[in-house]
Amino acid sequence: MEPDANTLNLSRLAGGLAPFYVMEVLERAMSMEREGADIIHLEVGEPDSPTAPEVCGAAIDSIRRGETLYSPSPGIEPLRAAVAESANLRYGLNLTAENILITSGSSPALLLAMMCVVNPGDEVVITSPHYACYPGIIKAAGGNPVTVPVYAEEDYQIDIGRMRRALTPNTAAIIINSPANPTGAVLDDKTLEAVCSLGPLVVSDEIYHGLEYGVESRSALNHTGRAIVVNGFSKLCSMTGWRLGYMAAPRELIRAARKLQQNLFISPNTFVQHGGVAAVRSVVPRSREIAAVFSERRDAMERDLRRIGLPPCGQPRGAFYMFVRIPGGAGGDSRALAFDILEQTGVAVTPGADFGSEGEGHLRLSYANSVANIREGVGRLGRYMESHC
Amino acid sequence: MEPDANTLNLSRLAGGLAPFYVMEVLERAMSMEREGADIIHLEVGEPDSPTAPEVCGAAIDSIRRGETLYSPSPGIEPLRAAVAESANLRYGLNLTAENILITSGSSPALLLAMMCVVNPGDEVVITSPHYACYPGIIKAAGGNPVTVPVYAEEDYQIDIGRMRRALTPNTAAIIINSPANPTGAVLDDKTLEAVCSLGPLVVSDEIYHGLEYGVESRSALNHTGRAIVVNGFSKLCSMTGWRLGYMAAPRELIRAARKLQQNLFISPNTFVQHGGVAAVRSVVPRSREIAAVFSERRDAMERDLRRIGLPPCGQPRGAFYMFVRIPGGAGGDSRALAFDILEQTGVAVTPGADFGSEGEGHLRLSYANSVANIREGVGRLGRYMESHC
Repeated sequence: MEPDANTLNLSRLAGGLAPFYVMEVLERAMSMEREGADIIHLEVGEPDSPTAPEVCGAAIDSIRRGETLYSPSPGIEPLRAAVAESANLRYGLNLTAENILITSGSSPALLLAMMCVVNPGDEVVITSPHYACYPGIIKAAGGNPVTVPVYAEEDYQIDIGRMRRALTPNTAAIIINSPANPTGAVLDDKTLEAVCSLGPLVVSDEIYHGLEYGVESRSALNHTGRAIVVNGFSKLCSMTGWRLGYMAAPRELIRAARKLQQNLFISPNTFVQHGGVAAVRSVVPRSREIAAVFSERRDAMERDLRRIGLPPCGQPRGAFYMFVRIPGGAGGDSRALAFDILEQTGVAVTPGADFGSEGEGHLRLSYANSVANIREGVGRLGRYMESHC
Repeated sequence: MEPDANTLNLSRLAGGLAPFYVMEVLERAMSMEREGADIIHLEVGEPDSPTAPEVCGAAIDSIRRGETLYSPSPGIEPLRAAVAESANLRYGLNLTAENILITSGSSPALLLAMMCVVNPGDEVVITSPHYACYPGIIKAAGGNPVTVPVYAEEDYQIDIGRMRRALTPNTAAIIINSPANPTGAVLDDKTLEAVCSLGPLVVSDEIYHGLEYGVESRSALNHTGRAIVVNGFSKLCSMTGWRLGYMAAPRELIRAARKLQQNLFISPNTFVQHGGVAAVRSVVPRSREIAAVFSERRDAMERDLRRIGLPPCGQPRGAFYMFVRIPGGAGGDSRALAFDILEQTGVAVTPGADFGSEGEGHLRLSYANSVANIREGVGRLGRYMESHC
């Protein structure tokens, strides 16, 4: 094959996607590691602990039982039922298996949710800063992202008046994310309720539920029946590489999403879902214990960041991220700064530019790492800041 | 939660998707089985044999090594390299790992391919009959499917003049599928070359390559550098439930697809990919042996279908399907006929209506089943036809 690249016409969607700078940081960090550098990873959004042995064992048993054929499109019944039951227990809901669609990660669940409710040209409201992938997912479903800024000074809470003014007759949905990536902010329940009462369908990305410190979130489904909840096993259950997520929604919507999943993905992996059943039974009930580990890391990072004069923005009470403002704003180039920090100190951090226009001038630090590594990493960052900013 | 279904506004995409009748047939057949009925499954598009032990062992070892974190977005390097090498060996190409993107099944590879090249309103040309999911995938990427009929009398070969007349300035791509679902037809290499020379980018779904009888297909990449090949492990390697596929394409296109994958799916499952490396090394080299088993089944089904007066349409020389014309056309309702056959005889078959307008009036029979079951199933079908058609 001689690829004739000049005559390839990429779509506007494919041509227009912003790269993830964090992936470039990660790749550079890994190549420095291969050359022997001592790298502290504060950039990655995944827990450092391996998946629990019960989950691994359940998937291995499933493979051994020969459960390697297609699963039903909406997922295997035991996992759908277990997810519904677990959500009912935590939130006091009345979900059944019919309210659950299992997907290959929470990302495809979000894509299917968007495709279910967005017509070409519709608007989808998100905050800024926001999780890096929301604009791409919205555009892939034919929608236009509309951003509503949230501010550190307001603890990144959504100002309801500001969000209401962003709504138009073309608003198909609002995507919210609490605890939030990249800020770690947790929406007050009153704010959550107010967002759910604004009118448009709410798509609530609850992937960091369970990873909350000194606070416990309710679900969007506590406040409205017109919500699609997106969640998964990656973060709380240390299962990023398994690609297992789900959508909880009204049955009518699940029926539509199921047809879409059938057409676009056929079904999720069968034995991975059996691992998921074990995760709901064995890992989810240990969520307080898991959160306690992250809480200690959170405290260590906040303490050290304050010591070096980079206090976290807002109150990071969930997920495993802190968002810090770069003194002087790094000339509006958080990407260049992140690369320079990596080269000079071996500390990998995420440029704020990955998270929308309100993210520029910031860095995201992940505390999904040991307290020792957090202390060492923030220490190096402090020495860098002293000499550069 | 009290889902307020009346106020949910489904998108035109989600509201307009045709259901897969075959899934309804399968569900009914399974519920009859639970009630004790003796069902012969000739409807499903998956091999009946379990995944090879080498593949299962490699995935289990990978889980045990703790390879449960995110994989790189385009897939793990060893699998990308192995896939490229294997394609080079079979087709005499010069692919490298940079030409390969690993995906969670071949379906997401096809969706990403469409999203990479289709702008809203663009046309994508497919044959009719066609694999049931193509229209949904094209529409999900914002495109409009345009069908070009292919006929049993022409052995389902693409008439190049007919296809050329379907092209317009808005044609973004042509999707071809050989060996074909649902007809089992294999495109002549000259026809494949002619399609590749028509002008538009060719997206070649080669998922049934390796399952060919008395013929061996070349790849679209043998004829043009402006092609995207979609393939995977489901069919030849009996890995339907693993959800592992890939795209082979010019590097520029892979770079764009990789960015899309990052945004929409993050990455494929990590340990499943290690299973995939074992599949390329241990199963793909045994493809002639695997094909020999299906070839025997193919011969048995053809012989018995001719005996009962339902000869396969065209020459089914690949995949594991035969397409048969219903005597009298079943009043244009192949779905009702398929359900009646199931209820009366316990034989599950796929209604032709699943495969586009040219599919109505037909049934698809899968020979991914034992020779004994094929003989029993076709025998029952013959007795049904004698008394009903």
